[in-house]
Amino acid sequence: MISGKNYIGNKLSAKNTKMYKTFNPKTNTENTISFYEANQEEINEAVLLASNAFDAYKNISNEKKALFLNTIADEIVALDTALIETYCSETGLTEGRALGERGRTVGQLRMFADLVRQGNWVDATIDTAIPDRVPMPKSDLRKMMVPLGPVVVFGASNFPLAYSTAGGDTASALASGCPVIVKSHPMHAATGELVASAINKAAEITGMPNGVFSNLNSSGIEVGVALVQHTGVKAVGFTGSIRGGSALFNLAAQREEPIPVFAEMGSINPVVILPKALAAKNEEWAKTYASSITLGSGQFCTNPGLLLGISSDSLNKFIVHLSDEIEKIAPTCMLHPNIYKAYTTNKENAETQQGVVIAASFETKVADNHAKQAVTTVDGATFLKNTSLHQEVFGPYSMVVRCENAKELEAVIVALEGQLTGTVIAEENDAENYVEIINALKNRVGRIIYNGVPTGVEVCPSMQHGGPYPASSDSRFSAVGVHAIKRWIRPFSYQDWPNVLLPLELQNENPLQLSRLVNGEQTTRSI
Amino acid sequence: MISGKNYIGNKLSAKNTKMYKTFNPKTNTENTISFYEANQEEINEAVLLASNAFDAYKNISNEKKALFLNTIADEIVALDTALIETYCSETGLTEGRALGERGRTVGQLRMFADLVRQGNWVDATIDTAIPDRVPMPKSDLRKMMVPLGPVVVFGASNFPLAYSTAGGDTASALASGCPVIVKSHPMHAATGELVASAINKAAEITGMPNGVFSNLNSSGIEVGVALVQHTGVKAVGFTGSIRGGSALFNLAAQREEPIPVFAEMGSINPVVILPKALAAKNEEWAKTYASSITLGSGQFCTNPGLLLGISSDSLNKFIVHLSDEIEKIAPTCMLHPNIYKAYTTNKENAETQQGVVIAASFETKVADNHAKQAVTTVDGATFLKNTSLHQEVFGPYSMVVRCENAKELEAVIVALEGQLTGTVIAEENDAENYVEIINALKNRVGRIIYNGVPTGVEVCPSMQHGGPYPASSDSRFSAVGVHAIKRWIRPFSYQDWPNVLLPLELQNENPLQLSRLVNGEQTTRSI
Repeated sequence: MISGKNYIGNKLSAKNTKMYKTFNPKTNTENTISFYEANQEEINEAVLLASNAFDAYKNISNEKKALFLNTIADEIVALDTALIETYCSETGLTEGRALGERGRTVGQLRMFADLVRQGNWVDATIDTAIPDRVPMPKSDLRKMMVPLGPVVVFGASNFPLAYSTAGGDTASALASGCPVIVKSHPMHAATGELVASAINKAAEITGMPNGVFSNLNSSGIEVGVALVQHTGVKAVGFTGSIRGGSALFNLAAQREEPIPVFAEMGSINPVVILPKALAAKNEEWAKTYASSITLGSGQFCTNPGLLLGISSDSLNKFIVHLSDEIEKIAPTCMLHPNIYKAYTTNKENAETQQGVVIAASFETKVADNHAKQAVTTVDGATFLKNTSLHQEVFGPYSMVVRCENAKELEAVIVALEGQLTGTVIAEENDAENYVEIINALKNRVGRIIYNGVPTGVEVCPSMQHGGPYPASSDSRFSAVGVHAIKRWIRPFSYQDWPNVLLPLELQNENPLQLSRLVNGEQTTRSI
Repeated sequence: MISGKNYIGNKLSAKNTKMYKTFNPKTNTENTISFYEANQEEINEAVLLASNAFDAYKNISNEKKALFLNTIADEIVALDTALIETYCSETGLTEGRALGERGRTVGQLRMFADLVRQGNWVDATIDTAIPDRVPMPKSDLRKMMVPLGPVVVFGASNFPLAYSTAGGDTASALASGCPVIVKSHPMHAATGELVASAINKAAEITGMPNGVFSNLNSSGIEVGVALVQHTGVKAVGFTGSIRGGSALFNLAAQREEPIPVFAEMGSINPVVILPKALAAKNEEWAKTYASSITLGSGQFCTNPGLLLGISSDSLNKFIVHLSDEIEKIAPTCMLHPNIYKAYTTNKENAETQQGVVIAASFETKVADNHAKQAVTTVDGATFLKNTSLHQEVFGPYSMVVRCENAKELEAVIVALEGQLTGTVIAEENDAENYVEIINALKNRVGRIIYNGVPTGVEVCPSMQHGGPYPASSDSRFSAVGVHAIKRWIRPFSYQDWPNVLLPLELQNENPLQLSRLVNGEQTTRSI
């Protein structure tokens, strides 16, 4: 069923001799199927097909694009247990997680299908002519959003479905009218191939142009680099490390024609626990955070890696409670031995920094590739001095910073790099008493949470998933929710264009019944 | 009245010994006032003031921000003849142009004041909580746009008012809640200081925080480079050459925290003249284009520098008519001797390329710094081979490319870099007969015009001023119209935030009466 080959449009292709296998971290053994890495010829073919498909695909009707997206969702569901078993065998994640993530993936595709069918995402804006205006006549101007062109999507290690082959980036790019070339994540190449087959089947069923989708295998960085540098590629979506994301960002900026890179990168998601909350609900928050820190082995970009409090007996008690809770939770399997090794190394590096105290650790022997969760503490002055402590330890790890006072806590926030999220844990008038801290936090994050946890990213229009650099490469866009489509589009104006030659979205009769801004008024009326 | 000093917030400052003067191209003499170039200390002060002003300024009410913008407009008008005379003395432009550009500048400020007062630009989006959802409760999420932080605006040489000190970039950034630091254009430093004084007077009258605006003088590149590299600066607006804009883009991308640069750069604005239009209205279009090419000495980014036609007798006639018309028009004064010299050099360089034929030139002696307009012709094959002919000649110059057939014309369009505009001149079913040409043109431009000229950029919501690189550094945004505000903002989500602590835009009661997307429905209702 799985060929190990690349999809160049709807054709399987294996022109390279370089091959690799995926790994089952639970059994600690290699999986059996060999994958053919894409070579330069295949990369060029995929980009050429995508470029050729672009004009046809962008002009396909909203109804048909929506049908394509919904059919992808159907075909992913139809993969059934084959997909779920493959997913589990390549990730160490549970069947429950696999089913949940499949649900999210399918839900995103259907959400974008609805968005496309409804059509208002093009932000149609019309200013009609005033031929007798003095001193100069006014032209008729009509603007709408149009797709950028072929998009490259990098599969994410920690979301083999929801942020990989047919994940949020692919779904939003296809919805906008951009062909997609996926650089498959090497850790879950079989899962990727199955999903790619579903996309190509859907493309065939719904009559999409060949090249609207390709899936390229790659174990190293070469395929990704070649794709980002290819003149035919017009934008890039990436979820992963700061190192990987910023390397792609730099490559894209150095092109003769720079292109946008939307990289969702690292974040330690600071949580400020204010004094009254520490006093009132100490154990409750300790329990909640132990659970958030260890959720999915801490392999979420919104994992709370930094807890900030003002030194007090309550904070000391919180650290004890949190440590107790952390030690009660059974370690879970990480995605891959390399991720497990990186976690162990980074954790040990953080733990051995001067002034860092280990508060909770998990010392008993655990199964292969299972992460030993940990909590450390450090004082604010030490944290401010040692910026290596500001870096993400990807996994079930968190550091509690004991700040001397509110001013030092604010200084710690100001010293942080950009973050996806910030959280405030408060009781009564805590929030009003620490306005400067909250304002400082707002300037550092894309989403701010009150009395909750940053993990669990709701897919809805009001979700912002993205934050100031380096949390993401462009804080002006979201990777989650319908507004993720905004990453792949640009405004385009028609001046004095004959009605019959305009796209349906901008024609006088408003045949798509869109809500349009016409001469300053938002309306569905025709002109 | 003009001090020659920098405005560091509301204080005049002159800490540098380096000084320079502006130049009157009409009299071909230096103006008398000396300007003090900003030094590093002043740059740091301006950025620090802007950073400190940011939190206060972004939280000022919509009404007060609108009042600030309107008061800037009032104060600019109050500068009266002093401003108009200074403008003319530094640009060689006419009083009529000065008045027109002042009108546009003031109009833009008032347009953004209306936008801010109305408030819907924040795109308020709310999804309310579903506490009993299974398997997991849904949080309350509320999103709105927030300003990025201090913005640096580079004054444009060709728009001393409308795209400089208080121009479109400054007006849109101030409207969004971003403090602005202007890097004054050295060619019109006195005009810049006058406008800066109006802004600071308005800030004082309306009680804005000091540092919301600064104006730095600079004759070289150092001040601009230091500003773009400064960690306190969060975005950059620029209008000028591809060389200047791409240098700033690269600097910004190489920062530890990369920031967005919105550079409006060069464009040759291809015009496709289709056969039936050539046959039907040959002289009419020749006359119209002679006028568009020479408007404002050709010193507009939308100047039509490239006319494309299919070889025919009609095209030959058009070239003769266009040449005749061009030679009838009296040459006008360019902005500065350096711009005049660059025009002359670039024009001569283009004219002496192999295969290029001079069709119209202006050989009689003209006054100092007055541009001799010119039209050249070349065949399609030569144009395709020699990419130096694809480069902008900033000034009243245009090249007619005689293409062998439609296919070659399409190839010429595909070979072009990104452009601000493309124009199609057509009669009857011309447009339907050349669909591929028009589709190719659409992929290269931000605005497409039918039977008109690209010059004359209307300021309205449906205007797109920006195009694929290198026409602008980011085709996803417009520098003209209310949507220009989108360059300086990012989405920000509140999760489960107490109603009373939310900004007014997102509170249940909808106190600002905004149109909000609430649980998928666009409404002004409260929750």
